[in-house]
Amino acid sequence: MASKSESRDCFGWAARDTSGVLSPYKFNRRALQDGDVSLRITHCGVCYADVVWTRNLLNNSIYPVVPGHEIVGVVTAISTGVAHFKVGDIVGVGTYINSCRTCEYCNSDKENKCAKGATSTFNGIDTDGTITKGGYSSYIVVHQRYCFKIPDGYPPELAAPLLCAGITVYAPMIHHNMNQPGKSLGVIGLGGLGHMAVKYGKAFGLKVVVFSTSTYKMEEALEILGADEFVLSSDEQQMQAFSNSLDFIIDTSSGPHPFEPYMSLLKTEGTLVLVGFPGEIRLSPASLILGSKTISGSLVGGTKDIKEMLEFSAANKIYPKIELIPITYVNEALDRLVKRDVKYRFVIDIENSLK
Amino acid sequence: MASKSESRDCFGWAARDTSGVLSPYKFNRRALQDGDVSLRITHCGVCYADVVWTRNLLNNSIYPVVPGHEIVGVVTAISTGVAHFKVGDIVGVGTYINSCRTCEYCNSDKENKCAKGATSTFNGIDTDGTITKGGYSSYIVVHQRYCFKIPDGYPPELAAPLLCAGITVYAPMIHHNMNQPGKSLGVIGLGGLGHMAVKYGKAFGLKVVVFSTSTYKMEEALEILGADEFVLSSDEQQMQAFSNSLDFIIDTSSGPHPFEPYMSLLKTEGTLVLVGFPGEIRLSPASLILGSKTISGSLVGGTKDIKEMLEFSAANKIYPKIELIPITYVNEALDRLVKRDVKYRFVIDIENSLK
Repeated sequence: MASKSESRDCFGWAARDTSGVLSPYKFNRRALQDGDVSLRITHCGVCYADVVWTRNLLNNSIYPVVPGHEIVGVVTAISTGVAHFKVGDIVGVGTYINSCRTCEYCNSDKENKCAKGATSTFNGIDTDGTITKGGYSSYIVVHQRYCFKIPDGYPPELAAPLLCAGITVYAPMIHHNMNQPGKSLGVIGLGGLGHMAVKYGKAFGLKVVVFSTSTYKMEEALEILGADEFVLSSDEQQMQAFSNSLDFIIDTSSGPHPFEPYMSLLKTEGTLVLVGFPGEIRLSPASLILGSKTISGSLVGGTKDIKEMLEFSAANKIYPKIELIPITYVNEALDRLVKRDVKYRFVIDIENSLK
Repeated sequence: MASKSESRDCFGWAARDTSGVLSPYKFNRRALQDGDVSLRITHCGVCYADVVWTRNLLNNSIYPVVPGHEIVGVVTAISTGVAHFKVGDIVGVGTYINSCRTCEYCNSDKENKCAKGATSTFNGIDTDGTITKGGYSSYIVVHQRYCFKIPDGYPPELAAPLLCAGITVYAPMIHHNMNQPGKSLGVIGLGGLGHMAVKYGKAFGLKVVVFSTSTYKMEEALEILGADEFVLSSDEQQMQAFSNSLDFIIDTSSGPHPFEPYMSLLKTEGTLVLVGFPGEIRLSPASLILGSKTISGSLVGGTKDIKEMLEFSAANKIYPKIELIPITYVNEALDRLVKRDVKYRFVIDIENSLK
C-alpha cells in the first residue's frame, strides 16, 4: 500500500471559454487522502455532456473545463483504508466522484440521487471547494467508493462508455423490471445511449423496437445491433402499427419531438423513461390517465447499479461500438458528436496519445 | 334465489340533447342473465362525468343519456350463479358494469384496465349492443362481478361517492405505497376527489398538504378535513416553502394549471399522479430527470381495489361529506358542480324522490 502521495502535475486538455475549443492544459490534483485511489487514465469516452460544459450550454461552466466522465485507468497508488483495489487494477470512474455519504440515498447505494447533490466528475464543486476536472487528463484521484473494478478481460477502451452511456440506460431498465424476457422495449434514438439500450434489451430477452428519424440507421439497428424492428418515427403509419404494443420506452433523444405518439405505443400501465434531454414535454392528461401510463426521468445510476451493470456487461459480452481516437482529434470529435456523426461512441486513447 | 326476471319498465332522468337538461324518462333494462343482480337504486352520487356526457363535452354522447356511476341500492333479485349477494343486501356499482373477463387485466382484478375497454356504467356500449344507462334511475341490472357489498352499518348515501371519487384517489395511493405512515402527500384541488384524498391520507398516517386556488377553503381543509398544511397555489413564496418535501402529489384538479411548480415540490423519486383532467401538461425534461421524478395517470380502480377501499373506509369510519338532494334538484346541482359550488359531493336521494 502506498502512503499519501504529494500533489503533482496533471496534464490534460481543457476548454478555456465558450468556444469550447480544447487545448493542452496543466493542473494539480489533490494528494491522496484516506480512502483515495489514484488512476493513470488509459481511456475516456466522449459524452454529449462534454459538449454541454465545454461550450457553456447551461450557462454554468467554470473555465477552464477539463471534460470527460467515462474514465478507465490503472491504479497507480492507493491510500490508507482502500480495501477493494490494489495497484495495477483496471478501474472505471463515472459521472460523479463524491456525494455526502450520509443521506438516505447515499445510504441505499443511490449516490447519484444524493440529497446534497452528487459531485460531478468535471465542472463540479468538490467538498474541499475545488472545481473537479475530468478524464481528458493523465491521472485522477478519486475516493474508492466512486471507483469500479473493470471485470477481468473486458477491454478497457470498451469499458469507458459503460460508465455513463451504459449505466444511464441499464439502471432504469432494471428499476422498471425490464430484465424479464418476453417484454417489449422501444428505444428512441440510436446514438451512444440508444445502441446500448438495444444491446441490453436483447441480452434481457426483450423484443426491441428502435425508433429513429434516420432511415439509414435501419440496417445497422436490425442487422448489426440485433433489434427486432425499426420504425421511422416520422412515418405515422409505421408508428400506428405499434399502438399499445410496448411495455417500456427509453427515450435517449436529445432533440425536440412530440410525446403523444409514443405514449400511444405503450401498453396499459406502460412507462416512458427520459434519459436524454429531448426538449419540452407536452401531453394531454388523457394520454396518461387512459391506460394508467407513466413518464419518468432517470439520471445515471448508483454505485450498486454500476457494479452490477459492469458484471452483467462482462458476463454477457455486451460491448459498446466505439471509434477510438487520439486526444488530438477531440475537437473534431466533439463537432461530429453534435452532428450525430459517430457510431456510436468516441473513446479517447489517453494512454497512447496524451503526451 | 329468483329465476330470470322479465325486462320491465325502468324510470329515470335523462338528458336528451347537448343542453344537458335532465327530465323524466322511461326505458327498459335487460332481463336478468346468469350471474346478474338487480338493484333497486336508493342513492346515486353526482360526478363531474355526469356533466361531461349529459352536455356532450367529449363529442361522444349517445342521447338520451341517463347519467350516474356512484350507485347504491338494495338487491331485489338475483339470477343463477350469483353466490355473493342475496336479496336485501345493500350493494354498490361504480363506473363500469362489464369487461371482457378474459384479458390479462381482467384476470388480475384490474377490470378498469380491461384490454377491450371496460364498459362504462352509462353512455357505454355493452356486449349486447345496448347503450348503458346509469344510476339516475329506479333500478339497474348488473353482473355480480361489478357489484360490491356495502359494509354493514356504512350509511348508503355516504357509500355512493366511494364508488367513483373514493376509489379514484384510493387506488393510486395504494399502488404507490402511500399507505405508509410518515410519508408526505400533496393534494391539488379540494373537491369531491380531493377531500377524499385528504381523508385517506390522514387515515394512512400521512402528512397532508392541500393546494388550492381558493383561500376560503383553508379553514375547511385544516379544521374540518384535518389536513396538516394549506398552500395557496398562486402564492409563489408559500409554494417554495414546500420544495423537495413531498413523496407524492395527487392532482384532482380539472382546470389548467402549470406543472413545473408542483414537480419541484416532490422529493427525489417522487410521483405526481393525475386523476382529474387538468389541461395540457407542459414540462421541461429536467424537471423529471433531475431527481428521477415521475408523472403518472390513474383511472378509478379494479374490483379488488374497490372491495378493499370499501372495507378500509368502513373500518376507519371515512365518510365523504355530501349534500343529499332530491332528483328534482339535479339540474341545479349540475350547474353548481360546474361552478365548484358543492361541499363536496351531491348525492341524489333516489329512493325518496324518484317517483
